[in-house]
Amino acid sequence: MTKVNIDISISLDGFITGPNPRPGEGLGDGGAALHEWAFKLRSFQEQHGREGGETGRDDDVLAEGFSKAGAFLMGRSMFDLAEEPWGESPPFHAPVFVLTHEQREPLPKQGGTTFTFVSDGIESALTQARQAAGDKDVAIAGGASVIRQCLAAGVVDEMQIHVTPLLLGSGTLLFDESTAGVSLEPTRSIEGDGVTHLRYRVGDRG
Amino acid sequence: MTKVNIDISISLDGFITGPNPRPGEGLGDGGAALHEWAFKLRSFQEQHGREGGETGRDDDVLAEGFSKAGAFLMGRSMFDLAEEPWGESPPFHAPVFVLTHEQREPLPKQGGTTFTFVSDGIESALTQARQAAGDKDVAIAGGASVIRQCLAAGVVDEMQIHVTPLLLGSGTLLFDESTAGVSLEPTRSIEGDGVTHLRYRVGDRG
Repeated sequence: MTKVNIDISISLDGFITGPNPRPGEGLGDGGAALHEWAFKLRSFQEQHGREGGETGRDDDVLAEGFSKAGAFLMGRSMFDLAEEPWGESPPFHAPVFVLTHEQREPLPKQGGTTFTFVSDGIESALTQARQAAGDKDVAIAGGASVIRQCLAAGVVDEMQIHVTPLLLGSGTLLFDESTAGVSLEPTRSIEGDGVTHLRYRVGDRG
Repeated sequence: MTKVNIDISISLDGFITGPNPRPGEGLGDGGAALHEWAFKLRSFQEQHGREGGETGRDDDVLAEGFSKAGAFLMGRSMFDLAEEPWGESPPFHAPVFVLTHEQREPLPKQGGTTFTFVSDGIESALTQARQAAGDKDVAIAGGASVIRQCLAAGVVDEMQIHVTPLLLGSGTLLFDESTAGVSLEPTRSIEGDGVTHLRYRVGDRG
């Protein structure tokens, strides 16, 4: 059955972007370092249309995430910040449903990514994403606001957090008061190279 | 050589207490759950003067921390909140240096714990704690304010964070803007039972 997953890199002090995310610097000041563990890996390179890269435990974790995702759900702010850097062949290679308040025609890109804009709410977007995912999973790509809405609504099945050794001090927090009490059951912890991959089964708010 | 360590349990959203810490509920609402992984363990029981308890990987990690600590450094708020529940035989079994603005006579307790009150600043307290620790280490016991001061001052050598599967939503954050940019190098990650133990070598602020 299709599951709904979150898979995201975070600083040790809880941020998924540095301060001041903006077009051209979508991860904010210093935020790109959150993904440094992944850049050098083979499946990251492959996902971005390039060859080479390191294999090993971190690459296995990353490849597993990519292979499970049959569709993505994304907030409008994240789309706006990242559309340009993603270019003509975005690294999803699957349908992406973008939550927005505007009606807009679907935007097909190269490599299997099509952005579909959903203006009638998160439940509708999730339903469409589940259908599009087939027997694979729906990945909540971000940003923080969409992730938190999904956690608070109890629609997330699994969450994997890649904890990086960074103290950013400010930026976009992944969790806030709206996610208080969401129940988490640890299912796996993998020590990587400069990162630890923590996986949880996610329940409702207690 | 004596090292300065931090060893503390944290929620996945970064809190070391729940909301509203107060006498009798020093860890705030829901905060005791941060230490649930430890309560059942043999070295926790032993440290609190009781017998029995589970052994295994988590117990090894906890025992290692206890065995390395030759002296403790603590803030006044933490002391005030916890003095009563700790009772006549506090779980330190070593000298504890309490940062305060008042002058006060040392307070010896049973089992090797003596609280010494230091009113001339954190550097003086650290110097005294280093001397008292002999060839063991100094453990920064808390609270958050003292830990952050030590991190920001670049005097911490090692930090171990026990990440628990809790989203508390509010309470006392371990890190804030004052700890932004402190350099961390992961040295160990151990998957426990309902907890992951992350260890870092700590450097200066970048």
